[in-house]
Amino acid sequence: MNTSSRLTTRLGIRYPIVQAPMAGVSTPELAAAVTNAGGLGSLGIGASTTADARKMIERAQALTSGPFNVNVFCHKPARRDGVAEAAWVEYLAPLFEEAGIAPPDTLSEIYTSFIEDDEALAMLLELKPAVVSFHFGIPSPDRIAALKDAGIFTMATATCLGEAATIEAAGIDAIVAQGIEAGGHRGMFNPEATDQCLSTFVLVRLLAQKTTLPIIAAGGIMDGFGVKAAIQSGAAAVQLGTAFVLCPESSANEAYREALKSERAAETRLTKVLSGRPARGIVNRLISFGEANQSPNTAGYPMAYDAAKRLNAAASKLGNHEFGAQWAGQGAPMARELTAADLMALILSELLMEEV
Amino acid sequence: MNTSSRLTTRLGIRYPIVQAPMAGVSTPELAAAVTNAGGLGSLGIGASTTADARKMIERAQALTSGPFNVNVFCHKPARRDGVAEAAWVEYLAPLFEEAGIAPPDTLSEIYTSFIEDDEALAMLLELKPAVVSFHFGIPSPDRIAALKDAGIFTMATATCLGEAATIEAAGIDAIVAQGIEAGGHRGMFNPEATDQCLSTFVLVRLLAQKTTLPIIAAGGIMDGFGVKAAIQSGAAAVQLGTAFVLCPESSANEAYREALKSERAAETRLTKVLSGRPARGIVNRLISFGEANQSPNTAGYPMAYDAAKRLNAAASKLGNHEFGAQWAGQGAPMARELTAADLMALILSELLMEEV
Repeated sequence: MNTSSRLTTRLGIRYPIVQAPMAGVSTPELAAAVTNAGGLGSLGIGASTTADARKMIERAQALTSGPFNVNVFCHKPARRDGVAEAAWVEYLAPLFEEAGIAPPDTLSEIYTSFIEDDEALAMLLELKPAVVSFHFGIPSPDRIAALKDAGIFTMATATCLGEAATIEAAGIDAIVAQGIEAGGHRGMFNPEATDQCLSTFVLVRLLAQKTTLPIIAAGGIMDGFGVKAAIQSGAAAVQLGTAFVLCPESSANEAYREALKSERAAETRLTKVLSGRPARGIVNRLISFGEANQSPNTAGYPMAYDAAKRLNAAASKLGNHEFGAQWAGQGAPMARELTAADLMALILSELLMEEV
Repeated sequence: MNTSSRLTTRLGIRYPIVQAPMAGVSTPELAAAVTNAGGLGSLGIGASTTADARKMIERAQALTSGPFNVNVFCHKPARRDGVAEAAWVEYLAPLFEEAGIAPPDTLSEIYTSFIEDDEALAMLLELKPAVVSFHFGIPSPDRIAALKDAGIFTMATATCLGEAATIEAAGIDAIVAQGIEAGGHRGMFNPEATDQCLSTFVLVRLLAQKTTLPIIAAGGIMDGFGVKAAIQSGAAAVQLGTAFVLCPESSANEAYREALKSERAAETRLTKVLSGRPARGIVNRLISFGEANQSPNTAGYPMAYDAAKRLNAAASKLGNHEFGAQWAGQGAPMARELTAADLMALILSELLMEEV
């Protein structure tokens, strides 16, 4: 099939395959391997300091001369609610006790949103990655203009037609259409809004009729057959995340890899428990505990993530991995354990296979 | 693309397109038109008496010499809970008042499950439709054997791998893989079980690796591009329901058609409120009311449906269509108003369109 498009031409990539940014899981090695295999590698810097992000980008630039994508979080800065946060921590107290540490006195807003992060913007304008993508919303017009003026291609995640229209009106170059199947954080701009929970393929088909921007299908796609189906549906490219987690180049820890290779991969849930925003991961004890009847509302994002990360750090030292975020999409049981280069080659062989 | 398969050959249909049974919406005219256009028409008789079902099947047989599918409901017979049912009716009292009738004293189990309906079985064995399909579960081995011995091709809906394995083990001939996008009743065998909410495309890809049975993809598919994508993903055929509701041959009433053609089609919800089992429809006042905070548990299936039908019948007479079931899948905004023959021709032209 014909896999080239305006998008692949503009980005200078051979194949319409984007490795999802996956903050905390992606690495310069993974991004560079995907780019060197003809796709578009990505780094997720939403959870990193600007100094660390700079190091990751410079490292990726050293590993590949090709284009890659740097993803930033554009959430509305946190509205703090001390009472709700305290209630959430108190509810988690038995788990903290199990992990052998005292619950924190207060939670922190552990990430700065890109919409107010001048340092990160300056760093991106200096290092000029080929692509910058936005998640949880979009930045102000002047920030978008600054990136575009620097020759950077911009993309943003939409989970519904309304978000896609906002992205298009802002002059962003492409839309990542994230379906309900997708692993990790759902990109919805307002996590309190009613979610229509559109699947990837429905969202892509709807968007194909509504937008002239290139659409990158994200969610549930794990192999070349899925890539082909998404392109048939009107996507210019696809974004795969869960498919790359088992690559040795990812920074997923051993417990995460084991869960993804186990029967547990078949049970994922979209939950606010781990971070405060809806995100899909493999069900574990923290999710079940946090969603039990009578549980209080989860603390806001990213304060709930602060709680979960502290809990998981302590419990992991005791060999308990039931409190970690093991993000995964509905396609998780189809994850394959291969190097990024071999996985890309396999996906491409499936994609380019002639029909019988 | 090559659209023939073992399934189309066995069924003697030209195109891999099944019109979903849609009890209450499908008609002999619709089923026959789809079959005569080269697809597989369907009748849903789960909500009909055996006498009415017989009339529908005989009428369809008069209108086409080709194969069609008759769908039956195989839910576990209702467990009655007078207290819960009374609480549900009491909760709905303000709506009954608005509709100008008294709330019913008791609710009825308005449908007989096929798993205990000897009369319906005898009628099917006599009339021998080409295909019989099961929803909400599967009947006993002797009933399946009786249908197969009569030369009838059998199909059953699965929403997850476990249900698919049960279907395959029972010797049923094909699996309708129903994704979370699908309109109408979700076919899950046990409506109280945790639902992994798999999308059509994820379910099809997973099943393609697990079963040798033909897979019929159902949910979110509205046009030939979607059909093509589903077949690329490993489906032998697709089942479209919402796509056919606007056909003049369907029995959808005017209010339903208007809703489907309006902006409201973009907002569907999977809810137990209308019938007592999860089903996806266009959001209306009954759904919002029934799902409001502090609402009691919905009455069981099909008793809640009895309540909703009484309410809707009375309200409709007053011109209020906010309490009816307007089943629709996530793809509803893509529904096209054409005769069944014209819609089939358009879908086929999209499906068979050469790539550019």
